[in-house]
Formats: sequence, C-alpha cells, structure tokens
Amino acid sequence: MADKSTMVIFSGDLDKAIASFIIATGSAAMGSDVTMFFTFWGLNILRKSEKVPAKKTFLENMFGRMMPRGPEQLGLSKMNMGGLGSKLMKRIMRKKNIATLQELMETAQDLGVKIIACSMSMDVLGITEAELIDGIEYAGVATYLAEADQAKLNLFI
Amino acid sequence: MADKSTMVIFSGDLDKAIASFIIATGSAAMGSDVTMFFTFWGLNILRKSEKVPAKKTFLENMFGRMMPRGPEQLGLSKMNMGGLGSKLMKRIMRKKNIATLQELMETAQDLGVKIIACSMSMDVLGITEAELIDGIEYAGVATYLAEADQAKLNLFI
Amino acid sequence: MADKSTMVIFSGDLDKAIASFIIATGSAAMGSDVTMFFTFWGLNILRKSEKVPAKKTFLENMFGRMMPRGPEQLGLSKMNMGGLGSKLMKRIMRKKNIATLQELMETAQDLGVKIIACSMSMDVLGITEAELIDGIEYAGVATYLAEADQAKLNLFI
Repeated sequence: MADKSTMVIFSGDLDKAIASFIIATGSAAMGSDVTMFFTFWGLNILRKSEKVPAKKTFLENMFGRMMPRGPEQLGLSKMNMGGLGSKLMKRIMRKKNIATLQELMETAQDLGVKIIACSMSMDVLGITEAELIDGIEYAGVATYLAEADQAKLNLFI
Repeated sequence: MADKSTMVIFSGDLDKAIASFIIATGSAAMGSDVTMFFTFWGLNILRKSEKVPAKKTFLENMFGRMMPRGPEQLGLSKMNMGGLGSKLMKRIMRKKNIATLQELMETAQDLGVKIIACSMSMDVLGITEAELIDGIEYAGVATYLAEADQAKLNLFI
Repeated sequence: MADKSTMVIFSGDLDKAIASFIIATGSAAMGSDVTMFFTFWGLNILRKSEKVPAKKTFLENMFGRMMPRGPEQLGLSKMNMGGLGSKLMKRIMRKKNIATLQELMETAQDLGVKIIACSMSMDVLGITEAELIDGIEYAGVATYLAEADQAKLNLFI
C-alpha cells in the first residue's frame, strides 16, 4: 500500500510554491499518493495567466483584481524588492537548469499529484473555476481532513 | 479510540487564524481530539479586546502595547493595506454568511478543542493570563510535544 | 525504538528559528531522533557570522550579499522595525535567562539533532559549504523525504 502525503498550500509566494512542488513531486516520484489543498493566497498559484471574464460583484472583484495571476506573477516571501528578487531567482534557476514552477506543476500533475482548490476560499477571494488551471478538483476542508487522516506526512505551507 | 490532531499557531495573522480554526473545528467535528498550541504572535489571537491592567516592567510592556488585542484587531498576512484588506475580508465573509474568527473560536471551544497558551512566549512578549480569553490552558513546549507524539495530524501555522 | 521528528526550516526569521530550535531540542531531549532540513532563507540561520571568501559569479553573489549571516543578524517575522524588534526580543530573552538562538543551536547539535542544508537551495542562493557552520550535512529533498517517511512529527516552518 502506497504512503500518502498532504500539503495545505496557504501561501501564494513563489519561493514557498517552488518548495511545495519540489516536495510534492519528490514524494510522488518516491511512490507516495500526494494531495495538495490550495487555500487563501495559495489559490493564486493555480490561476491562469490570462484574464478570464467572470461576472462578479464589486466586492468579489476587489481581491481578484489585485492578486497575482499564476506562477509568472508571484513574488518572493522575502527580498522580493518589487519583483526584482523573483526575477533574479527565476533567472538563476534557469541558468542552473532547475525546473521552473510551471514545469514543476506540470510534472506534479503528470505524476498524479491531486490538486484541490478550496471552494470556501474561492468564494471569499472571488475566484471562479474558469480562472483556475485545468485538471484540478474543488472541495472543502472535510475532503482535506479525510485525506490527511490517512497520510503519514502532512505539511502546512 | 479517537484520532488526535495538534497545531502550533505561531502566526497572529487574521487569515492564518481563520484557516487554523476552520481546520481545528472541522477536525473536531469529525471526531478528532484537537490541541492548539499558541506561541509568539499567535498569542495575540487569544487576547481579550479590552485593555487589562497589568503590572509590567517597561521592557515587558513594549511588545504588549504594540501588538493587536484579539481577533478584531488582527491584520492579514498579505494585502492588509493598513487594515483595509482585513476589513474587506471580514465584510465579504459576513455577506457570504461565513463564520467570523470569534465565532469559529467559540465553536472550537464548544467542540472541546484544547487551547494552550505557550507560557514561555507569554513571558517574552509580556502577556499575562488575565489578558487572555477564558477556558484555556497554560503550558510549555513539553506539553505540546507529548500531545504531538500521539497525534496523526500535526501542523505549524 | 526511538520516535522520529523532522522539520523543514524554510524561514530565516529569528522568531521562527527560535521556535524551531525549542521544538527540536525539546523533542531530542524527550528521546526523539530529530532531523532539521534547512532550505531557502532558512539557510541564513546556518551561515557563519564572518564573511567567508568564495569564488562566485556576479549573479550567484547577489542573494548572498544581501542576506543575513547567521543568528546574530536575523530579523523578526513581525514587528522587526528595522532590527529594533529583534534587538528588543534578544534583550528580553537575556533578561529572563532564556537561551539565545546560538545556544539553542549548540544544544541541538550536542543532543544529536541532525542538521541538513538543502544543496539545491545553496546552489540557487549562491551559498557555499565554507560559509555554513560545522557539523552539518548536505543533501537534497529525497533525503528529507526518506526521513519524513519514518517520522511521526513533521513540520514546515
């Protein structure tokens, strides 16, 4: 029987997202069933980079407008320096042939990592399903807890 | 025998506090024994909103004066914009009939979630027992570790 | 058979570092095998305080120059106020006879806590082995995952 790992991805920072997906793909490559539960700012990692038209109230639109859309727009948790830091880190990683966040996310999906977007957070931040990448699931905290209950490794990032 | 979950609540941000208590109440509702260990800035979540007179040295008083007192004063970890962001999030949650942090905390206590304030952090940040909400316990890291040792789900938030 | 605990130390903040090492030393003192895996900004905790000459490309040198070197230079995750907050916290902890981060790190090593620096992060941030403290190991995420797989307590800090 395969081991199980879960991660709550609360943060929407580029560096934490990279760390999450390195752990997730590593764990999946070693035979684990991995579930990532994206909540609050973590949802921004799953956003498509293009603007998706959606009918929202003014209030619902507030956060959505200001938040980054997808991996390319995420900032660092430290030393972001208005985006300079994240540009620098991406450039270094490219030079050293380390996978980008987009590539890590594709690898994760190829390896069968289950990606769940937290439906309550989507509601609060005014994010619709059409705005998020394909091949993911939508669920609430009960689904996460049921997975975590069977897992050996559980992280909150 | 019931499952057990523990959480270290290090952060005092409103969004992370909401996420913590949603996980805690969800886990307790599904039959788990839940222990939340509040340390460092996480203690601010447990502070009463009113000013409580306490005899403190000047140094002890420094952090206490500057830190938020309770759920109503907490800011967001991202996009707080001087308090505007947290006001906006609270307004959206009210509109969508999602429980407030105060309500989640009461539900947690009703469901028997054990809330422990880290005594060493209280000492460092100059917070007294009288300043914290009722119905909680006071203990050190050894108590947390003993609980975590028996738990299946352990998170650091 | 001894219990096992692992921690990913992603953050390089003084307060989170103190919390990590209090949990690590407490867990080790209670008989657990503890492994701490330092990645991204967490590597700054392991840096020697003195400048170590190293041959680096301009790009590799960018992060290394700007990042704090060791426990003495770390800031707080909240209320750092340009270093004032971390000075204040260190002063309070000294007054109350609480171990400093340096002392906690020495105790951890004395208790046999295994400290691993993430080799990929060192590469990205341009940090060499000579710049980090003695008595530590160097490895990648697979090593961390193998340890976590056997551990009961796993935290991401």
